[in-house]
Amino acid sequence: MYGIIYAYERLKGEEFVEEIKGKNPTFVCVIATSETAKIPGISAAGKNPEFTDYTPPADVELLFYGRCKCIEGLPVTPEGIPTPALITMTALKLANIPTFVVSGGLKVKPKAPFIELGGKPGGDIRTGRAVEGVNEVFERAKILGKNLAKTSDYLVVGESIPGGTTTCLGVLTAMGYDAKGKISSSMPTNPHELKWKVVEEGLKNAGIYFGSLKNKPFKAIATLGDPMMAAFSGLILGAAEARKVLMAGGTQMAAILAIVKALKPEILKNLAIGTTKWIIEDKASDLKGLINQIAKIPILAANLNFGRSRYKGLMAYEYGVVKEGVGAGGVSIASILKLKGKLTWEMLKVNIEKNYRQLLEEAH
Amino acid sequence: MYGIIYAYERLKGEEFVEEIKGKNPTFVCVIATSETAKIPGISAAGKNPEFTDYTPPADVELLFYGRCKCIEGLPVTPEGIPTPALITMTALKLANIPTFVVSGGLKVKPKAPFIELGGKPGGDIRTGRAVEGVNEVFERAKILGKNLAKTSDYLVVGESIPGGTTTCLGVLTAMGYDAKGKISSSMPTNPHELKWKVVEEGLKNAGIYFGSLKNKPFKAIATLGDPMMAAFSGLILGAAEARKVLMAGGTQMAAILAIVKALKPEILKNLAIGTTKWIIEDKASDLKGLINQIAKIPILAANLNFGRSRYKGLMAYEYGVVKEGVGAGGVSIASILKLKGKLTWEMLKVNIEKNYRQLLEEAH
Repeated sequence: MYGIIYAYERLKGEEFVEEIKGKNPTFVCVIATSETAKIPGISAAGKNPEFTDYTPPADVELLFYGRCKCIEGLPVTPEGIPTPALITMTALKLANIPTFVVSGGLKVKPKAPFIELGGKPGGDIRTGRAVEGVNEVFERAKILGKNLAKTSDYLVVGESIPGGTTTCLGVLTAMGYDAKGKISSSMPTNPHELKWKVVEEGLKNAGIYFGSLKNKPFKAIATLGDPMMAAFSGLILGAAEARKVLMAGGTQMAAILAIVKALKPEILKNLAIGTTKWIIEDKASDLKGLINQIAKIPILAANLNFGRSRYKGLMAYEYGVVKEGVGAGGVSIASILKLKGKLTWEMLKVNIEKNYRQLLEEAH
Repeated sequence: MYGIIYAYERLKGEEFVEEIKGKNPTFVCVIATSETAKIPGISAAGKNPEFTDYTPPADVELLFYGRCKCIEGLPVTPEGIPTPALITMTALKLANIPTFVVSGGLKVKPKAPFIELGGKPGGDIRTGRAVEGVNEVFERAKILGKNLAKTSDYLVVGESIPGGTTTCLGVLTAMGYDAKGKISSSMPTNPHELKWKVVEEGLKNAGIYFGSLKNKPFKAIATLGDPMMAAFSGLILGAAEARKVLMAGGTQMAAILAIVKALKPEILKNLAIGTTKWIIEDKASDLKGLINQIAKIPILAANLNFGRSRYKGLMAYEYGVVKEGVGAGGVSIASILKLKGKLTWEMLKVNIEKNYRQLLEEAH
């Protein structure tokens, strides 16, 4: 419907779409930072490793103000490719979707309203001590999810956390899922070996092994995860009893799904993943292969195509840079469904280009 | 309708009620703390002055969890009279009203989800330097208000800030309204003289005088106000263009109304005040006389009566202790309107008593 790509569990996906079509979603963006992101070569979400502390707050400032406040210009990769928050911001605006930001744990706070859950920034998972206070952040997120569910037809939940695919690999491995070589990367060349080495070191230092935390999702987050996960999964637990939740992200959603399944499998029926075509078509990762191991929930993908874009920064998405983040895929889908096709993928693309041009002009 | 008391501008009040009846509100509780509250004799919102830092976070914990976390038991006055959050909590639960907490600036953070706007706790207004960063907190609150308005039929906004009537007197005086002797108090005997002395000292130290900040509401907050005001008025500015807002509080709402009027008088038509019978009947303050000077918006009052309560802590409300706070009056009205009279004042009272008994039993 409306050109949405059904990438996995097509029938369930069509039912999900049928149910949320024309409804009013709320977008919730969970942001966090960690020391894991600063391991050289791990993350492209920032000009350089130290910059990753600024990427999530800058992303959500862009959503609210149409420009960043805690940094000049936009968050970009080392090659200058812009943040997917540009896509999210455009889609939110076109479809007038209400937006809330949740902090899982941040080093730099956004200069914008955000919901505090008492979480701290994440550590370096090589130490085997990744996240403090998982349980408390989770419980507060659950309360928040319950309240947000009361005010919306459904929720779209996205994330921005640099280094998030490496912690995803860590949690999935600890919980006994085969994720090696299957997680995505914001870089054009996925550093699978480096990520695996980081996870192996974390496992060793935490004294755990493949599958040993199968039924201990909080311990998996605490040892090898990141602060986004506690908040994101808590939001789902709070909201998905009463409402559908579109999990807006790439392979990181597999870790969230594994956590949710371990805590409350009966709500899985209310979940779908909303991602981008760039994730689905990526040869260096395997979202479907991950989800297939956990729970057969539908994967929907946004049909955005920057192949003929006049802007190199956007065209780079077609070559596998960035791919997803800040809920870009899921929010694009939600915007098109809210407007029941009155907004097309082409129109969305044109507006993203327009916003990108404006931001480039302002920067000069 | 449904026994709601129309205390001022009856016709407009009836129209307002007609429009929100049966609709789905969201409750937003703005909390903050200040050094003004610690001036001996100013506030009864806490066992003792130092305790006032804990009252707002404890109030909102009660709303979310049905019990406080940062303190044992309930926030009480020095005489042991319980917080009006008990009323609010009961009404929110009965009518299943979604709730969000906003910090204007806090010394002690609640152990619950809350929305951070970057504000700091307030100073002592005797110095003439009461609130830092008014403009920034206001702008962030405005964004938040816009987003909350998109998710609800209307908003009910309440507050919890000890010492709030004294800062209200300060702001109204600086803005040229005759508020002396007209503001309320949580104490049975209203310390008007003390409050006036505090305000006079603040005026003097700030180098301002009666009415000199008539059109400078941000400066009035910064010199003689409190951090709740910047957040509360920003929320209204963001929300009330698109939605009705029920300002849930007592005489402090006069300061908010004065600020909103100075900033955007065209949205006054979407505002009403929702308070308690105890405020309306109070001989030591004059809410109507304050509102009448500012803008002719309706005042609705909750018809709660604890006169025959078995609990002395509740019966004390009939003798003019506490009177209002944490949106108790407005949320009670909203709960009865949401359920279109299926919930009566008597049922609400019985449930408040039940919750109070449970909390007393847990404490023993």
